[in-house]
Amino acid sequence: MAQQHEQTRTETDAFGPIEVPADKYWGAQTQRSLQNFRINQPHDRMPPSLIRAWGILKGAAAHVNVEHKVLDPRLGEAIQKAAAEVASLDLIDHFPLVVWQTGSGTQTNMNSNEVISNRANEILGSQLGTKSPVHPNDHVNLSGSSNDGMATAMHISAVLDVEDLVLPALKSLRSAMEKKTKQFDHIIKIGRTHLQDAVPLSLGQEFSGFAKQLEYGQGRVEQALEGLRSLAMGGTATGSGLNTYEGFHAAFAKRVSEVTGKHFVAAENLFEAISANDAIVHASGALNTLACSLFKIAQDIRFEGCGPRCGLGELVLPENEPGSSFMPGKVNPTQCESMTMICAKVIGNHTAITIGGLSGQFQLNAFKPLLISDFLHSVRLLSDGMRSFEVNLLEGLQADEKRIKYLLDQSLMLVTCLSGTIGYDVASKVAKNAHKKGTTLRESAIELNALSGEKFDELVRPELMIAPSKLPGAA
Amino acid sequence: MAQQHEQTRTETDAFGPIEVPADKYWGAQTQRSLQNFRINQPHDRMPPSLIRAWGILKGAAAHVNVEHKVLDPRLGEAIQKAAAEVASLDLIDHFPLVVWQTGSGTQTNMNSNEVISNRANEILGSQLGTKSPVHPNDHVNLSGSSNDGMATAMHISAVLDVEDLVLPALKSLRSAMEKKTKQFDHIIKIGRTHLQDAVPLSLGQEFSGFAKQLEYGQGRVEQALEGLRSLAMGGTATGSGLNTYEGFHAAFAKRVSEVTGKHFVAAENLFEAISANDAIVHASGALNTLACSLFKIAQDIRFEGCGPRCGLGELVLPENEPGSSFMPGKVNPTQCESMTMICAKVIGNHTAITIGGLSGQFQLNAFKPLLISDFLHSVRLLSDGMRSFEVNLLEGLQADEKRIKYLLDQSLMLVTCLSGTIGYDVASKVAKNAHKKGTTLRESAIELNALSGEKFDELVRPELMIAPSKLPGAA
Amino acid sequence: MAQQHEQTRTETDAFGPIEVPADKYWGAQTQRSLQNFRINQPHDRMPPSLIRAWGILKGAAAHVNVEHKVLDPRLGEAIQKAAAEVASLDLIDHFPLVVWQTGSGTQTNMNSNEVISNRANEILGSQLGTKSPVHPNDHVNLSGSSNDGMATAMHISAVLDVEDLVLPALKSLRSAMEKKTKQFDHIIKIGRTHLQDAVPLSLGQEFSGFAKQLEYGQGRVEQALEGLRSLAMGGTATGSGLNTYEGFHAAFAKRVSEVTGKHFVAAENLFEAISANDAIVHASGALNTLACSLFKIAQDIRFEGCGPRCGLGELVLPENEPGSSFMPGKVNPTQCESMTMICAKVIGNHTAITIGGLSGQFQLNAFKPLLISDFLHSVRLLSDGMRSFEVNLLEGLQADEKRIKYLLDQSLMLVTCLSGTIGYDVASKVAKNAHKKGTTLRESAIELNALSGEKFDELVRPELMIAPSKLPGAA
Amino acid sequence: MAQQHEQTRTETDAFGPIEVPADKYWGAQTQRSLQNFRINQPHDRMPPSLIRAWGILKGAAAHVNVEHKVLDPRLGEAIQKAAAEVASLDLIDHFPLVVWQTGSGTQTNMNSNEVISNRANEILGSQLGTKSPVHPNDHVNLSGSSNDGMATAMHISAVLDVEDLVLPALKSLRSAMEKKTKQFDHIIKIGRTHLQDAVPLSLGQEFSGFAKQLEYGQGRVEQALEGLRSLAMGGTATGSGLNTYEGFHAAFAKRVSEVTGKHFVAAENLFEAISANDAIVHASGALNTLACSLFKIAQDIRFEGCGPRCGLGELVLPENEPGSSFMPGKVNPTQCESMTMICAKVIGNHTAITIGGLSGQFQLNAFKPLLISDFLHSVRLLSDGMRSFEVNLLEGLQADEKRIKYLLDQSLMLVTCLSGTIGYDVASKVAKNAHKKGTTLRESAIELNALSGEKFDELVRPELMIAPSKLPGAA
Repeated sequence: MAQQHEQTRTETDAFGPIEVPADKYWGAQTQRSLQNFRINQPHDRMPPSLIRAWGILKGAAAHVNVEHKVLDPRLGEAIQKAAAEVASLDLIDHFPLVVWQTGSGTQTNMNSNEVISNRANEILGSQLGTKSPVHPNDHVNLSGSSNDGMATAMHISAVLDVEDLVLPALKSLRSAMEKKTKQFDHIIKIGRTHLQDAVPLSLGQEFSGFAKQLEYGQGRVEQALEGLRSLAMGGTATGSGLNTYEGFHAAFAKRVSEVTGKHFVAAENLFEAISANDAIVHASGALNTLACSLFKIAQDIRFEGCGPRCGLGELVLPENEPGSSFMPGKVNPTQCESMTMICAKVIGNHTAITIGGLSGQFQLNAFKPLLISDFLHSVRLLSDGMRSFEVNLLEGLQADEKRIKYLLDQSLMLVTCLSGTIGYDVASKVAKNAHKKGTTLRESAIELNALSGEKFDELVRPELMIAPSKLPGAA
Repeated sequence: MAQQHEQTRTETDAFGPIEVPADKYWGAQTQRSLQNFRINQPHDRMPPSLIRAWGILKGAAAHVNVEHKVLDPRLGEAIQKAAAEVASLDLIDHFPLVVWQTGSGTQTNMNSNEVISNRANEILGSQLGTKSPVHPNDHVNLSGSSNDGMATAMHISAVLDVEDLVLPALKSLRSAMEKKTKQFDHIIKIGRTHLQDAVPLSLGQEFSGFAKQLEYGQGRVEQALEGLRSLAMGGTATGSGLNTYEGFHAAFAKRVSEVTGKHFVAAENLFEAISANDAIVHASGALNTLACSLFKIAQDIRFEGCGPRCGLGELVLPENEPGSSFMPGKVNPTQCESMTMICAKVIGNHTAITIGGLSGQFQLNAFKPLLISDFLHSVRLLSDGMRSFEVNLLEGLQADEKRIKYLLDQSLMLVTCLSGTIGYDVASKVAKNAHKKGTTLRESAIELNALSGEKFDELVRPELMIAPSKLPGAA
Repeated sequence: MAQQHEQTRTETDAFGPIEVPADKYWGAQTQRSLQNFRINQPHDRMPPSLIRAWGILKGAAAHVNVEHKVLDPRLGEAIQKAAAEVASLDLIDHFPLVVWQTGSGTQTNMNSNEVISNRANEILGSQLGTKSPVHPNDHVNLSGSSNDGMATAMHISAVLDVEDLVLPALKSLRSAMEKKTKQFDHIIKIGRTHLQDAVPLSLGQEFSGFAKQLEYGQGRVEQALEGLRSLAMGGTATGSGLNTYEGFHAAFAKRVSEVTGKHFVAAENLFEAISANDAIVHASGALNTLACSLFKIAQDIRFEGCGPRCGLGELVLPENEPGSSFMPGKVNPTQCESMTMICAKVIGNHTAITIGGLSGQFQLNAFKPLLISDFLHSVRLLSDGMRSFEVNLLEGLQADEKRIKYLLDQSLMLVTCLSGTIGYDVASKVAKNAHKKGTTLRESAIELNALSGEKFDELVRPELMIAPSKLPGAA
Repeated sequence: MAQQHEQTRTETDAFGPIEVPADKYWGAQTQRSLQNFRINQPHDRMPPSLIRAWGILKGAAAHVNVEHKVLDPRLGEAIQKAAAEVASLDLIDHFPLVVWQTGSGTQTNMNSNEVISNRANEILGSQLGTKSPVHPNDHVNLSGSSNDGMATAMHISAVLDVEDLVLPALKSLRSAMEKKTKQFDHIIKIGRTHLQDAVPLSLGQEFSGFAKQLEYGQGRVEQALEGLRSLAMGGTATGSGLNTYEGFHAAFAKRVSEVTGKHFVAAENLFEAISANDAIVHASGALNTLACSLFKIAQDIRFEGCGPRCGLGELVLPENEPGSSFMPGKVNPTQCESMTMICAKVIGNHTAITIGGLSGQFQLNAFKPLLISDFLHSVRLLSDGMRSFEVNLLEGLQADEKRIKYLLDQSLMLVTCLSGTIGYDVASKVAKNAHKKGTTLRESAIELNALSGEKFDELVRPELMIAPSKLPGAA
């Protein structure tokens, strides 16, 4: 907000004149929003990724408008230059508005229009605040409205951040997990179902499950991405395309694809594209599923690393930092904790996005700033979180093979491989007897005359227990 | 539970003998579960669709086991016959267990094993409770475990109900919506953004947005369905496939496809398939998005039907029943209310499913009964709800064209089409002046010398305002 | 729905005549709802607790109306008799409507009015379907509307079920937990923070934390209960009290209190009481917190029971049933699994309730059936679940003292009590050195000249480590 | 992170030496966290309110330690001075860590310890990095651990922000709403239930419902606040109080109360206080309910302001800014949109908090940073949002009395007051007949011989319809 001794200049809009800081490019409507929405400033400002998308959008619209001869090329060029500066985030300090504004993002659209027109006028040698020769509404906003613009900027920023942040981090983590799968392939360990000892598997098999979760997660995000490629620009306020012209809609999507190097298409139905934001809800759903996967993976790893002396102790997590201000020498699974908190947050964001998503009314979903802000936050958290998890935890993760073997040898569940030979009911008795008396399975089997020791040794071999058998002859 | 004078017979399991009702096929483990989990009986019993899937599963497993000569054909045939009876839901009264049991669904697996073995023994002329010649574990459960079985039954039931219930209802509703789109195509109405009068569109265009939401919703559900086609059977307890044999896994999926006429495949990674249920979480996410779409559609329709005399009154909803016990003659948008409640429920189920989905531990996700019960509930609610909405609301929905035209003619936002001619700032003044003085736009424009009356009449024509213009010459 | 060969009779409402099953008391409006809302019948019928509340409500209204001489005592008596049969659930088969109906619950109100008037007419010797002498609207619904009625029935059923089901179960579980606290008081065990070995505490102390969570949970539910005691009856359709009379509102609440033996009061503001259901949302919030507590408790217990041979193994859970269809002798923490699934469901219900709660419009929240159905479901699940958890798990829960002592003796975190003597940095080195070399803390301390063996033995005594020290002299 | 040419100094911890920026007070462990958790920096740094609470905590602990003679007064004084600077937020730039770190907040505790010890040493004339004479662990952390410390800082910050931000804003909004209730008391309007015309009420009555929602909301927040007053400090790592002394726990809470002027108490059970954060979950539940109330209020107001010409148009919202970049003269209910987005966010935060709340394990809930960060965010959003809503919307909100009267006179639901005279069924016919023929109720009543015109005029008077009647004589 304009403070007492700050230099100001006068800007105007339909509501009249208003003072704005002299060193900022924004205009009257941005200033009004600043004053009317003093809500968690400056923390909750619109995410930079979204501002970048507005820059791309304004540049592309000007390009298409010039191309179709509805905009003076001299103005169009200056607009494109200014818009490029917005897209580069060089002007990010000129975008002070928070998420908690009008639900169409109009004020951020006007912030873009005002910054770009002032900057363009400066480039063209005119004064800030004159709206001339470049007018924020008549030229920068030409062929667009806040409603189709915001829907478009949302999708542009979402596609960029999903493709540039979350997918690379996810692929990298998946590949690191696949490496671990191989590294741990030879280590046979006790399985655990219901948190109780179960039949064995290899540690590599366990990690192959994690890797597969990530692979599927990648597929789900990629599928959901398709819905985000579709751009509403050309629908103006309600989807009808009033005040735009035939050809604009398609040319715009093409231009954004060229500029960004990403694949975008013109939305098939512009009424849907503005009144609903289902594509964001669904993409958030894909992140929600990914969060479930990552929570599970992080949880398992920290439980298997539980110790060092009084827990499972099968995995040895890298020691990155002292774990306790109080207990000397303690090391904690901090990357797992960070990751699981991130996952809880992403799931919470999904609830907020879902509520925003169902709340569209008539021709507009007016929860757009919330929807995109929470979506981009989830994207960023998952991306950074997966990178951190990979580098600071997964890469250095080791198995305590001695401990794993010790536990495996204790287990009573190896009895399962005897079911085929002595039946489920007798096998049950062998296990329960050993459990009760604290003996080994072998001792128990012999005691109950279930099997000879030799036969036991022949049959009960963990290395034979981690795959289906070769097909036997007929029963 | 066995009551005082009820006839009983004795069944046994590893825990010893226990009395069960004489007229029921279930055995000892089902009986124990009944006694240990007295939780919202009988309301929260496992959904019939899941029991059907267990029947299909047990029949298919027996078929494959006979085919691979690991099961005596005489026993296998009797098992398949009994399993078919389970799949047909003829024996549904013999499945009394609730969702709130063990997290692997083991008790429902054993319920299936017990019912099928007892019924198969009956078919083979033996007595109930003898476990002979058909043993619930050694024969009915052969080549399977609860963990891979439950994961498999979940996917079978999910695919069946999504394909047979939710997709047909969704396609039918979409098609009815597309019909409305055409029916309403010629009706131009005021648009509303931010709940405020905006530029016009046709009612058909508005409904085309709804139809598109449903079309996309269908695509999302179909995509999510793919993940549900993959079957865990063959992984047994932990995914390793212990006690099964090479070939079982693939043959099983093939058999289930044959029997159901649906497409199923063997899961690519059995560790993932048992320890995680991400495919259910993600499919629930697709339903969550669909719920957002339906909420929005139902909400819009009831708001546009708001009246009859003191609201928007643009749509006339069918009068299906008296609306009030108190206000004579009142008719309410009850189908919209039912639908929005259903959507809230589906979203709540998605939260529960998400929490269950992130809570898998080691080799097992032990929230399986909750996951599938809530998923199938969402499927059923959406299916029945969409059918009801289509038949009882959408089909009979009418537009009040007189009212729509009246409102359109009142609007000040038609001024927007003048921006190109007189500029945004002057157009703003025309609208604000009319609003302040309660005059028409035309009167205001003339008063402010913005435009002649003739020019106004030439330019301000709603029928020209619902589409992009033909490309003009250069600006 | 009326089937082909079923006997029917004709009932009428403002929409005309309609056939209803001859053996049912319901009338025309119930029948229409049955036909218009074929949604998950019969599973999702209105909960019996709510029907009971409608019976109580109708009886109390008739009582007050007679008392105030606005209702013929002969009719009033018959209505009260019929209403009592509804309240006793003897007529539950005559309430076939599902939750997914009109959002005011009008159809269930009319179901009550119809059943009671028909039954009252029968008592008075008249014919079903005549609406005479007792008319469903004019007499049974006298002084009430669906809107205030449903809000009232919601609160009556909520208070009854919270007081009669959830609080007793919660108190009982809390008391059982306090017993365990004492039983386990003498057992010193290793603490675990971040799933890593930490400083010791007694098992009793650990369980005292659980008991305290339940104590606080009880307090929260009791506080939230207060908001549910307030009854909307007397507000009729919008809260204004049209068609009721001065004194009705207060007399009604008093009468319900007398009849139920619970404390109820007249709502302070009837507009709030009908247009919002915040009291239900908040009470659901109290259950949501309780669900978090129970999830945590169940989770800890199953993790500490992880084993029997390859996990923590500190707790021994009662063996209630065979755990696996596949692994003979396996016993699982099934009560914990049931409980955590219940908690996830309660949390999901809270999301649905929250969405319903925010969606009220103007004079009515029209998500009432969903709100109360999900709330009562949460109440019932928690009640039954806590009972089951107490009886089938907590009562029989034992500590493996030998195992607990073994683990405690292994721990490196006992080093913490040396910080005061040798400083955090040196203590850190002692612990890390022991960890690295696999030695005991004592050996490591001596090796690093941190402390003599004698001093070590004097200081490192777990029994001194589970409480603050007596205040030392000045540092 | 330390950049290439930045001046650095060496700090050390149990992991060895590490370079930190020379101009920052933080030490080795903060630096490691910075490097290990590069997650959405700097946006997601720990909230300043929490850092303030850590400052208060460290000062209070030093005070009590000096008082009890376990800390050298000279060091204690310097610590208190440095801690006060932290509490004043003067040193906020020295707290660079993000929320996504270890789940106990240990790294932020160490950040506090390091900043305070370095600053205290500076005050005492020593060098940064020497840890002498004031040691971060041995002195600043004395009698505390991260686990009890973080739990305590959470509650301190929560109580401060709830009492200083959310409650004042809520009370102020409530009082403004009560003013509106009086201002609008004389305006009788049509009621709306199910979005359909219903019986009338006064606009003041409608707003009295909003005011009551806020009053109850205040009560719920105040109740939940009580649970936050309880401080865990004195429990150290697991709740046992190891390395603290008798009396510390109580003296600490007393000291914090003195310093802050707020009421705090020593937690009754320290195991609960560290292993669970149910009090935060429950307080978030109170905010969740408040969010539902505010969503409903904002929604109603924007719907009643729907227009200006084609909607309900009963309320006139203040015009704060141009509403559209595209439609000249448009003004939108932007404060309502901001508020409903805030509510959706608070509800999403509640989901995240709930997941964090249920995920505690053994002696520690390790989702603490997420829990407090989301809770404080909700507090801040609601506070700022309610202030903005009050000042920018509610204060200037006006009724369009002419429009309201026009609509009221149209309504058919005034027929309801005739039910007592002509019966529900005849009244129904009168309303439906008028609706069908487009006539007034009066005309319809006469046409159907239901009532004379005189009688109609005598009975149908809206001003008599907004309250219960005086008690009539016996029926």
